[in-house]
Amino acid sequence: MGKVNVAVVGATGAVGREMVKILEERSFPINDLILLASTKSIGESIFLKKKEYKIQELDENSFDNIDIALFSAGSKVSKKFAPIATKKGVIVIDNSSAFRMDSKVPLIVPEVNYQDIKKHNGIIANPNCSTIQMVVALKPIFDEVGINRIIVSTYQSVSGTGKEAIDELSLQSHQVLNNEKLTRKVYPHQIAFNILPHIDVFEDNGYTKEEMKLVHETNKIFGNSKIKITATAARVPVFHGHSESVYIETKKHISINKLKKIYLKTKGIKLVDDIDNSKYPLAIMSEIYDEIMIGRLRKDLFEPNGISMWIVANNLRKGAALNAVQIAEFLI
Amino acid sequence: MGKVNVAVVGATGAVGREMVKILEERSFPINDLILLASTKSIGESIFLKKKEYKIQELDENSFDNIDIALFSAGSKVSKKFAPIATKKGVIVIDNSSAFRMDSKVPLIVPEVNYQDIKKHNGIIANPNCSTIQMVVALKPIFDEVGINRIIVSTYQSVSGTGKEAIDELSLQSHQVLNNEKLTRKVYPHQIAFNILPHIDVFEDNGYTKEEMKLVHETNKIFGNSKIKITATAARVPVFHGHSESVYIETKKHISINKLKKIYLKTKGIKLVDDIDNSKYPLAIMSEIYDEIMIGRLRKDLFEPNGISMWIVANNLRKGAALNAVQIAEFLI
Repeated sequence: MGKVNVAVVGATGAVGREMVKILEERSFPINDLILLASTKSIGESIFLKKKEYKIQELDENSFDNIDIALFSAGSKVSKKFAPIATKKGVIVIDNSSAFRMDSKVPLIVPEVNYQDIKKHNGIIANPNCSTIQMVVALKPIFDEVGINRIIVSTYQSVSGTGKEAIDELSLQSHQVLNNEKLTRKVYPHQIAFNILPHIDVFEDNGYTKEEMKLVHETNKIFGNSKIKITATAARVPVFHGHSESVYIETKKHISINKLKKIYLKTKGIKLVDDIDNSKYPLAIMSEIYDEIMIGRLRKDLFEPNGISMWIVANNLRKGAALNAVQIAEFLI
Repeated sequence: MGKVNVAVVGATGAVGREMVKILEERSFPINDLILLASTKSIGESIFLKKKEYKIQELDENSFDNIDIALFSAGSKVSKKFAPIATKKGVIVIDNSSAFRMDSKVPLIVPEVNYQDIKKHNGIIANPNCSTIQMVVALKPIFDEVGINRIIVSTYQSVSGTGKEAIDELSLQSHQVLNNEKLTRKVYPHQIAFNILPHIDVFEDNGYTKEEMKLVHETNKIFGNSKIKITATAARVPVFHGHSESVYIETKKHISINKLKKIYLKTKGIKLVDDIDNSKYPLAIMSEIYDEIMIGRLRKDLFEPNGISMWIVANNLRKGAALNAVQIAEFLI
């Protein structure tokens, strides 16, 4: 493909806006750009390279003449409109969870399994934010020595929930600081100055869907690997950037020094690991860097093949919009 | 002992103030109460049962006629003044890390190992906050089926650092919300709306002292057990209450249902585990409940003896001051 016609579905959401921004930042070869959203956003505009793009209402005719559609408007919208788009020859890159575990749909993190992109039948799924940063960090280890076990606890920012959650954290923080009555709309409990061990809905096995995504998506991205994964997902009062405390057991031994050397030359990874100078990945650093940041690398004290680390990334960008645009770049 | 003479060393600190409050709440049988602090607090008063207690300067004569001294003024003060106090026949309950790993000093969480109190030689150590809540939660499992492995990631509030850290989180949050320039005194990085994977100083093995306390203190409290423990300690923008994501592997199998039944009848533990109604322990609940709160109990999907849980407690009260007063209650 040369220059392409691109549609962004859910263009006014937190991820959708990042998608448009990243298309511009990376000079994606766009011929025509169509920004789609639900009725309530009609009339809004987004500026790209100083050109105004009016938000258009998503309907069955939105995909005529489109080459690539980036979807980020939730599972329901994807389930309804992605098949309509693919029937018109559009390649859909879907950021919702609608098709991620569909065996006919590749689930792609370019740094990890770009070679699976070509298996698509019109739809390519973008993994969940907390999965993307973990698999990018673990891929060099997986390739080098194999991985048997992952135990991960997340510290996820509110921007993963959306714009209204950012507003809620901001408003509630103000209310707590000023001893005002608390208002609550988005989360089931106060998020300001609190921790919620609850992201997405609970499944029958006692885990949340967010936790199960870390299990299933990771194994699918690593080629139906059989890694034993245990996840706990928590929402923290942070605006941007997901942090993860990750413990792994490798199949064969790898030293921390060797691992650091590998990370230093791995594209897409930024090693931030200088504890003598209090340098380690911080959630707020994700507002500056697009790379997956890794630090606090240390050998387990009891398990010869155990390694602990701290992983931080921008959940809206590499965790969603940037990964989707990178997939689109592989297509053209 | 009947009514006793009690000294609180570090009475104006975050934990010291809680100690005084808890002595009152629990109607501890006090004859005389001496509140001690460093020079900079002289002139301040604390009111207890409407009686005014002036803060006195800590010196070598502070412990004359004292029966029990509760220390919470840091390791340096404990190392200097605890031996002076014990020479005068005072029993010292020390909240610092000065003597915790001393083999002649019992390290006590009454719910777990009250029987070790009698082994003291004048000093009894109070464990670190993050250890206390974990061992109380794990004790019933340890007794019932044994524990081989613990992997814990913490979400620790700023009150664990002290009063000035509470002020810093409050001020920085205000500054971020109002787009003002950030000021920083206590932590090496911004704590407002951020996560710091760094508590206490780093040791040569790459772990922080806070993480190593979870390893060493837990095994000492469980009677020199050989549990393999991996810890990651993180500071979160929360005022009060430490949360912990804990994964364990037991020696023998125990069902989640059986474990819940045990927790329901265990004193000092509050089971908050009703995911259908979004009920699980929250950091802010620690401002209401003194119990160790446990929830998100679930069986591992891969390890037959693996269990995950979420543990929350008030780090200043059960995590420090309350535990110390409970030890004092066992003494009298």
